[in-house]
Amino acid sequence: MTQSFDTYFEQQRDKHLRELFEFLRFPSISTQPEHAQDVAACAEFLSDKMRNIGFENVSLMPTKGHPVVYGDWLHAEGKPTVLVYGHYDVQPVDPVELWDSAPFEPEIRDGKLYARGASDDKGQVFMHLKAFEALFETNGELPVNVKFCFEGEEEIGSLNLPEFVRQHQELLAADIVVISDTTMLGPDMPSICYGLRGLAGLQVDVKGAKGDLHSGLYGGAIQNPLHALVHILDSMHNDDGSVAVEGFYNSVTDLTPDERSAYATLGSNDAELMKELDVPALYGEAGYTPRERIWGRPTLEINGVYGGYQGEGTKTVIPSEAHAKITCRLVPAQDPDDILDKVEAHVQKHTRPGVKSTVIKTDRGNAYLTPFNHPAIQLAAESYAKAYGKPASFSRMGGSIPVVDTFSSVLNTPVVLMGFGLESENFHAPNEHFTLSNFDRGLRTLCYYWLGLEDALR
Amino acid sequence: MTQSFDTYFEQQRDKHLRELFEFLRFPSISTQPEHAQDVAACAEFLSDKMRNIGFENVSLMPTKGHPVVYGDWLHAEGKPTVLVYGHYDVQPVDPVELWDSAPFEPEIRDGKLYARGASDDKGQVFMHLKAFEALFETNGELPVNVKFCFEGEEEIGSLNLPEFVRQHQELLAADIVVISDTTMLGPDMPSICYGLRGLAGLQVDVKGAKGDLHSGLYGGAIQNPLHALVHILDSMHNDDGSVAVEGFYNSVTDLTPDERSAYATLGSNDAELMKELDVPALYGEAGYTPRERIWGRPTLEINGVYGGYQGEGTKTVIPSEAHAKITCRLVPAQDPDDILDKVEAHVQKHTRPGVKSTVIKTDRGNAYLTPFNHPAIQLAAESYAKAYGKPASFSRMGGSIPVVDTFSSVLNTPVVLMGFGLESENFHAPNEHFTLSNFDRGLRTLCYYWLGLEDALR
Repeated sequence: MTQSFDTYFEQQRDKHLRELFEFLRFPSISTQPEHAQDVAACAEFLSDKMRNIGFENVSLMPTKGHPVVYGDWLHAEGKPTVLVYGHYDVQPVDPVELWDSAPFEPEIRDGKLYARGASDDKGQVFMHLKAFEALFETNGELPVNVKFCFEGEEEIGSLNLPEFVRQHQELLAADIVVISDTTMLGPDMPSICYGLRGLAGLQVDVKGAKGDLHSGLYGGAIQNPLHALVHILDSMHNDDGSVAVEGFYNSVTDLTPDERSAYATLGSNDAELMKELDVPALYGEAGYTPRERIWGRPTLEINGVYGGYQGEGTKTVIPSEAHAKITCRLVPAQDPDDILDKVEAHVQKHTRPGVKSTVIKTDRGNAYLTPFNHPAIQLAAESYAKAYGKPASFSRMGGSIPVVDTFSSVLNTPVVLMGFGLESENFHAPNEHFTLSNFDRGLRTLCYYWLGLEDALR
Repeated sequence: MTQSFDTYFEQQRDKHLRELFEFLRFPSISTQPEHAQDVAACAEFLSDKMRNIGFENVSLMPTKGHPVVYGDWLHAEGKPTVLVYGHYDVQPVDPVELWDSAPFEPEIRDGKLYARGASDDKGQVFMHLKAFEALFETNGELPVNVKFCFEGEEEIGSLNLPEFVRQHQELLAADIVVISDTTMLGPDMPSICYGLRGLAGLQVDVKGAKGDLHSGLYGGAIQNPLHALVHILDSMHNDDGSVAVEGFYNSVTDLTPDERSAYATLGSNDAELMKELDVPALYGEAGYTPRERIWGRPTLEINGVYGGYQGEGTKTVIPSEAHAKITCRLVPAQDPDDILDKVEAHVQKHTRPGVKSTVIKTDRGNAYLTPFNHPAIQLAAESYAKAYGKPASFSRMGGSIPVVDTFSSVLNTPVVLMGFGLESENFHAPNEHFTLSNFDRGLRTLCYYWLGLEDALR
C-alpha cells in the first residue's frame, strides 16, 4: 500500500508540478478589486481539478465576497468524515521590484518553488488534492469521507467565512477538520501545531486643538497630541517587557511545566533568529524564552503610529491629531472583548490633560488550543514521523487563524493543523517560495494520515 | 508736520489699497517651482514701486534662489541709516477649498483685507513703502537714510539670505534694522516684540529587524521599533511638563522678575486661548503661566511621528523602522548645537536593547533678545502709543525668525521688530487677512518712528 502511493508520486511528480504552476499563475489577489476576475477564474480552475479527481457536488458557493469552493466524496460508509480547509486567494505582490522572478510566473530554483501563493496557501491546498488523487488511483476509493472548503478571502480576514460556516453547519459537519496553512519548525523538523494565539485589535485616536498649530506661537502652552499619545503608548509596557495594562494577564492559562520542558528539548533558536532578522538582541517578557513568548504568552504590539509631519525636512507644527494601531495576541483563556475593555480603560487612565482619547475596537479572535493527547493529533505526529523518518514535535504558533476557532466552535470539531510551510518562506513578502522537499514528504504525510484515521478515531 | 502725513494717508487711502491689491495678486509662492515666474514678476512690481517713490539703486540682486529686492535713499547726511527687511514671497494656499474668497483675488470684508500674504508679509512691506512715500510727499526728503532688503525666500526658511547678508555687509550696513513681520498682542493692543525663540530641529530614526515582520510569528520575542520610539519620546518630558533631557535648561537665561511682572499686567488670556483652540485645558511646564511658557521658556515639541501601518483597518505588522521629527524652541542663551547634542545623547541613552537609533540634526537658529531699554526700542513704543492712543506693551514671540539673529550678528546692529499683524489673522492658513485699522494706524506709527529716530539715537 505504502509503496503504491509512493511510486505514484514519483511517477507523477513533473505532471503535478506543471499543474501546480497553472494554479499559481492566477493572480487571485483577494484584496484588489481589479483582480476579482482572476480570483473567480482561480476558483473555477480549482473546482475543475476537484471534479477531475473524482470529487462530487463540486460548486462555487457564493458569499458576500469571493466564493467558497466546495466538493465532497462521501462513499466511505461507516468511516470518519473529514473537512479540509484551505484558501486559494493570495496576498498582493508589492513591492514587485523586490522579486527575483515574476510573482505569477512560477520558477524552481535550488529546490524551492518561487511564486506568490506557493506556500501560502495554494501549494498546500494542491497537496490535499494530489494526496486524495493518489489514494483514488492506487486504491480505487478513499479511506475517509472528505469535504473540501476552500475560501477566497483568507488574506482579507475571512470576512464572510464565519457566516458561511454557521449557515452550512450540516453540509460541513465532520469528525475532524484538517487545515494546512501553518508552518513546521524547520525544513527537516516535522512538527504539529496544536495552538494558535487569538487577536484583539484597536485604534487609539488622540485629539488636541481644533486645527494644526504653529509650534512657535503655541508650543509650551498646550498639550501636544503626539506627546500625549507616546505617553499612553509607552505606559503600556513595563521595563521588564511585560504588558502593563491592568488585568491583562488575569485569565491567562500559563504554559504547563510539560509544555515548557517539551519546548526546551527543541533547543534555542535565538542566535538563528537574530541572524535571520538582523537584530543585535532579542527582547521580550522576562522569565520566558523567546519561543515561549511567541507560542504561549500574550503580547501587545503597536502596529502603526502616525500624526503630524512626515515629509522631507522640518515643519514646526503641533498637530491636531495623533493615532496608533494596536493588536494584542491572546492566549487561552483570554477573552478578546475583555482585553479590549482593559486596554481602553488604560488609554483613558493615561490620557494627560488637554487632549481627548478615543478607542475604536476593530478585531476580535479567540486563541485556540487542542490538547495534544487527542488521537487525531497523535496520528498526525505519527504520519509526519513516517514520512520524514524522524519524530515530530508538538509546537504552537504565535499567529492567529480566526477560522480555526470558528470551525471548532460552530462545528464542535477538533481542528488538526498539518502545515508544511516554513517561516522563512516569505509569505506576504517578495520571493515567497515553497520548499519542494516538504511538498514531496507532505504528500506522503497526508496519505499516511488518511489511511490511519479510522483506526485512530475508533 | 503730523497733520501733513495724516492728511496724505486719508486722501490716498483708496489709491493705496488698489496698489496693495495689485501687489497681493501675484501668486508669489516661493516653495512651488511652477510659481517661479510669479515670484520674479512680483519682485519686478516691488522694485518698480520703489523707483517710483524715489528710491535709488533699485535692483533684483540674485541669490541661488529667488532674488533679493534692494533699493536705497542715502541723502540724509549725518542722520541715522536704517535697513528695512521684509519678504514678498508667500505660503502655498492649500487647502484652497477652505478659502471664502480666492487667495489671490483680494477682498475687503468687515474691515479686513483677505488674501494670501495680506498680513504675512506683503501688507507690512507695502506699509513701509507708503510711509516713506508720505514723508517724501509731505517733506520733500526723508528724515533717515534708508536701505530696503526684501527677500523672496522667507517662507522656505530664508535659505540663501544668511550668505547674502555676509556677502553684502557693506551694502547693508545700518544703525538699526527694522522688521515688520511679527504680531501685536491684539487689534487694539500695540506692542513691541523684543524677543524671539531659537530653533533646534532633528529627526530620530529607530531601526529594528531588516524587514517588516508578522506580529504573530515574531511578536513578543523582538523589540518593536515603535515601542522603542515611544519609550524614547515619552522619556523626553517629565510629569510636570518640563523637558527631561539632561542639561536642557543649563544655559537658559530665565525671565527676569521685571519681565514676569510686566507680562502679568497684560492679564491672563488663558480662557480666550482655550476657546480659540477648542481644548479642554492648557498644559505646560509647571511654575510658569502659558504666556511665559510661550515667550520665555524653551520647549521640545514632537512635530511628527510615523512608522508601521497607517491605512484603513488592521495590519498585524512589526515595522522595521519608526521615525520622529522634533523641534526645540530655544531661549537666550541656549546654543542650538549644544541642545542637539544633548537630545542626541538622551535618545541613545533611552534606546532599548534590540534596536538602533540614529539622530539627524536638521535645524539650528539662535534665540534673539533686544534689551528693552535700547533707545530704538523705546522710540518704537512711543510711536505706537502716539498712533494708537494708548501705551504699547513689550512682548516676546514664541516663534523663530532666524534672519533676526543673522542681521544682528553679521551686521552687528540692533533689530527692532515693529509688527502690525495679529495671531488670529491666519498666516499660513486659509482666509489669511490683514486688519485694516492696523494698516492705517501702522502707517502713522512708522512715520512717527522715522521722524523721531535721529533724536532718539543721538
